[in-house]
Amino acid sequence: MRIDILTIFPDMFEGPFNHSIIKRSVEKGLAEIHIHNIRDFATNKHRNVDDYVYGGSAGMVMMVQPIADCIDKLRAEREYAEIIFLTPDGELLNQGMANQMSLKENLIMLCGHYKGIDERIREHYITKEISVGDYVLSGGELAAAVLTDSIIRLLPGVLNDETSALSDSFQDGLLSPPVYTRPANYQGWKVPDVLLSGNDKEIKAWNYAQSLERTRLRRPGMLGETEKLG
Amino acid sequence: MRIDILTIFPDMFEGPFNHSIIKRSVEKGLAEIHIHNIRDFATNKHRNVDDYVYGGSAGMVMMVQPIADCIDKLRAEREYAEIIFLTPDGELLNQGMANQMSLKENLIMLCGHYKGIDERIREHYITKEISVGDYVLSGGELAAAVLTDSIIRLLPGVLNDETSALSDSFQDGLLSPPVYTRPANYQGWKVPDVLLSGNDKEIKAWNYAQSLERTRLRRPGMLGETEKLG
Repeated sequence: MRIDILTIFPDMFEGPFNHSIIKRSVEKGLAEIHIHNIRDFATNKHRNVDDYVYGGSAGMVMMVQPIADCIDKLRAEREYAEIIFLTPDGELLNQGMANQMSLKENLIMLCGHYKGIDERIREHYITKEISVGDYVLSGGELAAAVLTDSIIRLLPGVLNDETSALSDSFQDGLLSPPVYTRPANYQGWKVPDVLLSGNDKEIKAWNYAQSLERTRLRRPGMLGETEKLG
Repeated sequence: MRIDILTIFPDMFEGPFNHSIIKRSVEKGLAEIHIHNIRDFATNKHRNVDDYVYGGSAGMVMMVQPIADCIDKLRAEREYAEIIFLTPDGELLNQGMANQMSLKENLIMLCGHYKGIDERIREHYITKEISVGDYVLSGGELAAAVLTDSIIRLLPGVLNDETSALSDSFQDGLLSPPVYTRPANYQGWKVPDVLLSGNDKEIKAWNYAQSLERTRLRRPGMLGETEKLG
């Protein structure tokens, strides 16, 4: 899988992409990630990538030309399954979308800034608008990093333990049960007896009951969907 | 405002926190952000911070002791309004929560990894569990960066233009209208005439109608809530 990220702050990705499973996936040859500085495509004298918003309100808007030229160049080189714009009014990212995206070949992710990007980019270039949540960030970079991480970790071979991604919260329509590790007694706080019992059947039943209970309390909507499907 | 972040991958925050409004807020003295390496608090011989999960399933769990000691040390130094654990089964972050958090004095954010953290930390230390969305990430670091960014940008004085955060999507219960900048005609794609008209009243009416329409199409639930309140 190849992901091309278009940004005016390429350095934002240094930490997240150099110290995590994203780095490991690239080293293993399972993913290719390319960061493009939109400013490199600005053709005006001062290499501006933004300009005043039409209509007189406050704030700056990212211009059409540098973004359009960058996407045109990439599309001339290969086909892209989606050209994604990260924006708070996009479709809300969920685990199902991450699963679907992880099956694609090539993706472009565009990070916005300031008051947004010129609407003509959204109309004529973007094929999918994604929001990582109902809140506003100072730019699309962290959202692109989140989307990339949620996708990359699902690629076969990226996580060490193949069962790890499958037993995540959401993958089976339930939240994960509580987990414990040693010591069994920490300053009087004890691990539930059943987990120390060695009785596999009882442990599985306990984990399932806890998952169900936690989902009921914290994400009742999720449970409704599972039951409807079941 | 002071934010203390507890992580086993402190380098993950390099990019996001050194090239953005977060850096600017720190330089202006509006926010203090401290990253703590949980491994520095491990007392065992190999400085392990994780151990096998009780009950025999796959994966590792973050141990109680290093996290507990780190939080204890911080709490001995000052009071914290919330000790937050970033987790996919936490309360879903939204703009209202970000607004509330931006009014707090001191916050701790704990980043999980592997199959999660020992439940006893959640029971005895954590005061608030937050999820940035219904999807799984490879760790809590990106979620903590998202939460920090969503909060910090709301602090008075962080954004250059005071009106910028107020006119965001969500802040008035509506999504933002489309925005445009020069040129008015880009390869035949034109900016709507009304925005070039100079007629403030018509422009405001157009923006409001567009916001309403976009919210209706993309976040009908949001509109319902506003109408109920209105």
